[in-house]
Amino acid sequence: MAAPDNKPTSVDSSRAASRCAQVLDAAAECFRLKGFHGASMADISRTAGMSAGHIYNYFDSKDAIIGGIVKRELREIMANIESLEAAPDTFHAMIEHADEGMNRSLDTRSSALKLEVLVESTRNAELATLVHEADRAALARLCELIRKGRGDRPALPEDELFARAELLIATFDGLRIRALRNPQLNQDAILQVLRQQLDRLLND
Amino acid sequence: MAAPDNKPTSVDSSRAASRCAQVLDAAAECFRLKGFHGASMADISRTAGMSAGHIYNYFDSKDAIIGGIVKRELREIMANIESLEAAPDTFHAMIEHADEGMNRSLDTRSSALKLEVLVESTRNAELATLVHEADRAALARLCELIRKGRGDRPALPEDELFARAELLIATFDGLRIRALRNPQLNQDAILQVLRQQLDRLLND
Repeated sequence: MAAPDNKPTSVDSSRAASRCAQVLDAAAECFRLKGFHGASMADISRTAGMSAGHIYNYFDSKDAIIGGIVKRELREIMANIESLEAAPDTFHAMIEHADEGMNRSLDTRSSALKLEVLVESTRNAELATLVHEADRAALARLCELIRKGRGDRPALPEDELFARAELLIATFDGLRIRALRNPQLNQDAILQVLRQQLDRLLND
Repeated sequence: MAAPDNKPTSVDSSRAASRCAQVLDAAAECFRLKGFHGASMADISRTAGMSAGHIYNYFDSKDAIIGGIVKRELREIMANIESLEAAPDTFHAMIEHADEGMNRSLDTRSSALKLEVLVESTRNAELATLVHEADRAALARLCELIRKGRGDRPALPEDELFARAELLIATFDGLRIRALRNPQLNQDAILQVLRQQLDRLLND
């Protein structure tokens, strides 16, 4: 229901956002269960409880949907970084909240989807570009967070700053793989060593 | 060509091993390019240059082939650990050869295959069991390597030993994901920080 001048009202745009989210949730579930190629638009439509025609109002292809999943993932990462930016002591907050980051990494359902998207990006140049762009934005913001968090300490050389950020992300990403390979991993023991590792990566 | 008593001769078994490897290489390539579900036995047969009937002498299904890939991967990991066990100073060797481990992690072709196998294991209970068993064996051997490497130092509590091993593997596994997300990562800078991180995980 568009306004008379055909510009969307805020009610329309919030409804559209919620429909988009509904499609992305359904697609995420289908891609996870059947793989990107195994999941059809009909599966997504059934899971979302929306007609395929209705879905095409928001996304014109499965490629557009998987792209939407990458963009949503970036927004979530940015929101996490934003909440750390707002903390009075950034590094303390990062180490303190390492359990939340670890729990996200140990969520095997979300990891299966992320890995499915990543594997598909190795076969789909357009998706790869989107994944690389999203990563560049997130990495730059994390580096900025670390730079600020170091406060008055001597600045790290740019290469080292990026390398530390890379290894910080690699550790959490690697835990996704660990959780899939070893369902019995000892979370409490890992959290303790993880916090020491973060402390050194950030404060040394 | 079996020997008269029908036991395979060493020539037969070495030929069989080489045919198996040929099938696994071809399948790895097909799974990487088309995904496990997208790749057919016909694709694997064409890529291997062997008839499907001949392949069925060694593997009775695509599931058996992907299982063979997991077992081969485990043998490779065990061989890497074995060469570290043979080093006069284990931890020095692990840190010194971190570049080789990192280069394996940055090989995006092999990572795409490993992630494809891992994602498929979330949908295939039998494959998941195989992945978990292989991981348990590799993790136990890595823990044993770290235990011995610590020599006369006070023994680490068992939980902490496993947690350190988990984070060591997570770091290298995470770099697989990083290389797929960020093709421009600075390998030299990362290697330097990685070596510091290994030093602390092993020696602290």
